[in-house]
Amino acid sequence: MTAPLSSSTSPRIAVAIAGASGRMGRMLIEAVLASPDLQLSGALDAPGNPSLGTDAGAFLGRNTGVQITAELGQGLQGADVLIDFTRPEGTLAHLALAAERGVGVVIGTTGFSDAQKAQIRQLADKTPVLLSPNMSVGVNVTFKLLEMAAKALQEGGYDIEIVEAHHKHKVDAPSGTALKMGEVIAEAQGTQLADRAVYERFGHTGARVANSIGFASMRGGDIVGDHTVLFAGDGERIEISHKSSSRAGYANGSLRAARYLARQKAGLFDMYDVLGLK
Amino acid sequence: MTAPLSSSTSPRIAVAIAGASGRMGRMLIEAVLASPDLQLSGALDAPGNPSLGTDAGAFLGRNTGVQITAELGQGLQGADVLIDFTRPEGTLAHLALAAERGVGVVIGTTGFSDAQKAQIRQLADKTPVLLSPNMSVGVNVTFKLLEMAAKALQEGGYDIEIVEAHHKHKVDAPSGTALKMGEVIAEAQGTQLADRAVYERFGHTGARVANSIGFASMRGGDIVGDHTVLFAGDGERIEISHKSSSRAGYANGSLRAARYLARQKAGLFDMYDVLGLK
Amino acid sequence: MTAPLSSSTSPRIAVAIAGASGRMGRMLIEAVLASPDLQLSGALDAPGNPSLGTDAGAFLGRNTGVQITAELGQGLQGADVLIDFTRPEGTLAHLALAAERGVGVVIGTTGFSDAQKAQIRQLADKTPVLLSPNMSVGVNVTFKLLEMAAKALQEGGYDIEIVEAHHKHKVDAPSGTALKMGEVIAEAQGTQLADRAVYERFGHTGARVANSIGFASMRGGDIVGDHTVLFAGDGERIEISHKSSSRAGYANGSLRAARYLARQKAGLFDMYDVLGLK
Amino acid sequence: MTAPLSSSTSPRIAVAIAGASGRMGRMLIEAVLASPDLQLSGALDAPGNPSLGTDAGAFLGRNTGVQITAELGQGLQGADVLIDFTRPEGTLAHLALAAERGVGVVIGTTGFSDAQKAQIRQLADKTPVLLSPNMSVGVNVTFKLLEMAAKALQEGGYDIEIVEAHHKHKVDAPSGTALKMGEVIAEAQGTQLADRAVYERFGHTGARVANSIGFASMRGGDIVGDHTVLFAGDGERIEISHKSSSRAGYANGSLRAARYLARQKAGLFDMYDVLGLK
Repeated sequence: MTAPLSSSTSPRIAVAIAGASGRMGRMLIEAVLASPDLQLSGALDAPGNPSLGTDAGAFLGRNTGVQITAELGQGLQGADVLIDFTRPEGTLAHLALAAERGVGVVIGTTGFSDAQKAQIRQLADKTPVLLSPNMSVGVNVTFKLLEMAAKALQEGGYDIEIVEAHHKHKVDAPSGTALKMGEVIAEAQGTQLADRAVYERFGHTGARVANSIGFASMRGGDIVGDHTVLFAGDGERIEISHKSSSRAGYANGSLRAARYLARQKAGLFDMYDVLGLK
Repeated sequence: MTAPLSSSTSPRIAVAIAGASGRMGRMLIEAVLASPDLQLSGALDAPGNPSLGTDAGAFLGRNTGVQITAELGQGLQGADVLIDFTRPEGTLAHLALAAERGVGVVIGTTGFSDAQKAQIRQLADKTPVLLSPNMSVGVNVTFKLLEMAAKALQEGGYDIEIVEAHHKHKVDAPSGTALKMGEVIAEAQGTQLADRAVYERFGHTGARVANSIGFASMRGGDIVGDHTVLFAGDGERIEISHKSSSRAGYANGSLRAARYLARQKAGLFDMYDVLGLK
Repeated sequence: MTAPLSSSTSPRIAVAIAGASGRMGRMLIEAVLASPDLQLSGALDAPGNPSLGTDAGAFLGRNTGVQITAELGQGLQGADVLIDFTRPEGTLAHLALAAERGVGVVIGTTGFSDAQKAQIRQLADKTPVLLSPNMSVGVNVTFKLLEMAAKALQEGGYDIEIVEAHHKHKVDAPSGTALKMGEVIAEAQGTQLADRAVYERFGHTGARVANSIGFASMRGGDIVGDHTVLFAGDGERIEISHKSSSRAGYANGSLRAARYLARQKAGLFDMYDVLGLK
Repeated sequence: MTAPLSSSTSPRIAVAIAGASGRMGRMLIEAVLASPDLQLSGALDAPGNPSLGTDAGAFLGRNTGVQITAELGQGLQGADVLIDFTRPEGTLAHLALAAERGVGVVIGTTGFSDAQKAQIRQLADKTPVLLSPNMSVGVNVTFKLLEMAAKALQEGGYDIEIVEAHHKHKVDAPSGTALKMGEVIAEAQGTQLADRAVYERFGHTGARVANSIGFASMRGGDIVGDHTVLFAGDGERIEISHKSSSRAGYANGSLRAARYLARQKAGLFDMYDVLGLK
């Protein structure tokens, strides 16, 4: 994918942003504009959005020369990679045209059905696609660290506990990331999380169940998301933590993914590919 | 209580230890022997205990000149203060004679009935008595800090969460100390813990209940006891933690209590008195 | 200060913001607009600032009816309280007119000379003024907690260490807040920080100096500001932490200060007054 | 090494302990006695030690049938593996005879000269030898986790800081383990720690030096040893911590090493071999 549609002689990677007037879209536009190796080539938003026709950098007081458009062909014009954190249907429509044109797509959208995932896999035969439930570099590296720790500490009686903290508005517990951590650990030890998870402790619980994986959740304030996994042994503890203080990590991860896709021809990738963790 | 029974001209405080061959008893004996301002005057254990008649310092390879005895009068001979971490019935029997002789009693024993507590209060008219559910200096200071923080942070939307970690053998959750922390906080804010406590979070919990106090428990390895209270506000958190790495804190607190009682004539005291936190 | 200039029958407190187009100014405007008990009455910025004449809420896409002005009299029109995070000279000019009109002033500006501080004290005879080196509620409560802990743990051999973490751009160490924490602790124990501070440890340091207060600084990423004070005893630790994740804490503290000043007639106050910590 | 000297038909591994009356020796004896797959076959101490001739389990009130001896041949009688935390000269003398007899040796002793290390390598041609600066399973797994994290987070602007806390008696800073962590990280990133380490921060330090590795040390109480490595990025942090609460981790690691050596014929191994981390 050597940027065939780009008329520029610059070696910069041309990036289009979907959902350009949303919170994540704006963070992505700001991050692209701040990256010397990237250029903003297009900005998409849904028909009827009040931002259509305005400059994509207006919210920063900047004139980028890129207008927000609902017309897909125009939005992808000159792009090497599209970054898309929108909704499943929109993302699939974007991907269909991107695949025709050989534009890579970083998909941050969540909530795809199995049928939609199959469609994504098929389109990835024609263009490079990145699909990941969590785009943060740090969270993905943490998953990999947990995999390694779970293997190395499988013997020796290390008890595993996962504790997470999130803002007061979060409506479920444990967090999806905490559950994924539990799955990574269970799998690394050749087991199933369902056979080991202990989600609640209250009252007369009895002694800790051997080989269980315990979860604890805290809620309060505007905590973006903290996760700590504890491996508690005899006279020692190992703790692996990931702490988010803003959503910047998602934007950064998306840009790394875009750079990675710009070097690929086609195929379905995930953040482990991008980060060289496989 | 100016040590009338002590024939020594030394200003050292004479301390007797009940349960002298037990784990806590040995830790107390070691701590007394290490304190220049204290002397070991007696060591008690139950009739039939194999340690009776041996030197109270034998487990340290030391000759203290004090033999472990089951005879109460002998064990209290010359004592200013008795430190007692045994069982309710034994402690009450010890206290009865101590009160007659004006020997102060530091009670670390737990599990007294209401009737037994009434008896203790009565005997405290004749001799100084310290009764506290937790003898650790640090834990008591932490309670006081929480009281202050709870008042100062009552306004402003600070969400309160209590998380604790203990060893894998612990059979209940949350810990008694965590619950006591919740009570201290609720009371400082003019409320009842029962109206605010949230002990479990799993699945679709909904957003955090306003003014709730959340609890989370971790279990693993040989963790002696960690407690953290989180006050999570907008853009900031305050955390107050107590972390135990051994039972030395209980011995140290008991010795401070003994020194305090040696300066009192009679009355029922708690660790807040000893630490000047009232 | 019963808002004599306000023609509104509403009991809302009228707040003017200085430095309205700056980062802190915008955060304050947003916070005022989000508070049902407050109303935005004026917005000041320096002559020549490009924001002059625009609506103070434009950056939020909101029309507040308040235009940013460089004309002081107009900016203070109808105000009960001015919140000012600008520069010493500007703040003093604002304060002079505010004092004439009986408008309270929350001063978040730093870097005043001794002469300027004397001027502030004089003007505070005529109007209520709040002057504080740190406007965060949490940081001020933390100072108070440290004062209490330092007194309660003065006996018993608790070693005190202060560790802080800030972003990679910070050019000094330890942070001003860490130093202030050390001063609060030293003073609470009847000592001077200068006699106890240990700022560096490297190489053969020898055993820890008794009664010292150690400082350690970490720098990295975009950490807004974490501070932890450790009281390490025998077998136990108490830790008191304050962790900032955004500058929202400063805005919240300023608003609480404004509400407090609106109930005062005149005088110089600090955050301990506002928070009832004296 | 199929335990040729053991007359027992039991499949248990026969373990001899050097320095049997010392603190580490006693911990090792207690751990061996608590392990069903191990048996205590011998106990050595230096000539003149008062413990010689007494039962190796006397400090536990147990009769093991193994007497502490200064006679090397007797101490190694029947042993599959010797665990040795003593002094360089003693360890080398033990190793010489152990190599003749095909007894494996777990060496926890530190402070060998280069010449002595060469001798150890030579003797390891005849018998399995484990040599490691740190026998703790958790610390070695942590080194491996840091290696992986350092590689995965080399790009993306993650600042690395190492903070450690130890008891008040420690005379050097940073700890040897913290320095080793820095070396592991620097090497994983293809660099030298000497080119990157920043050991002190005080006063006007200027902004953080790009690519530096910062160290911070805390000292207090009886903290056994905490180490945390922080990777601070934009909007997120990863933290990897190891926390010791007792020396049990060293005993546990030694026993795992002993079991590993019992399955080897000869060669020089380290804890990465034992833990399968290579």
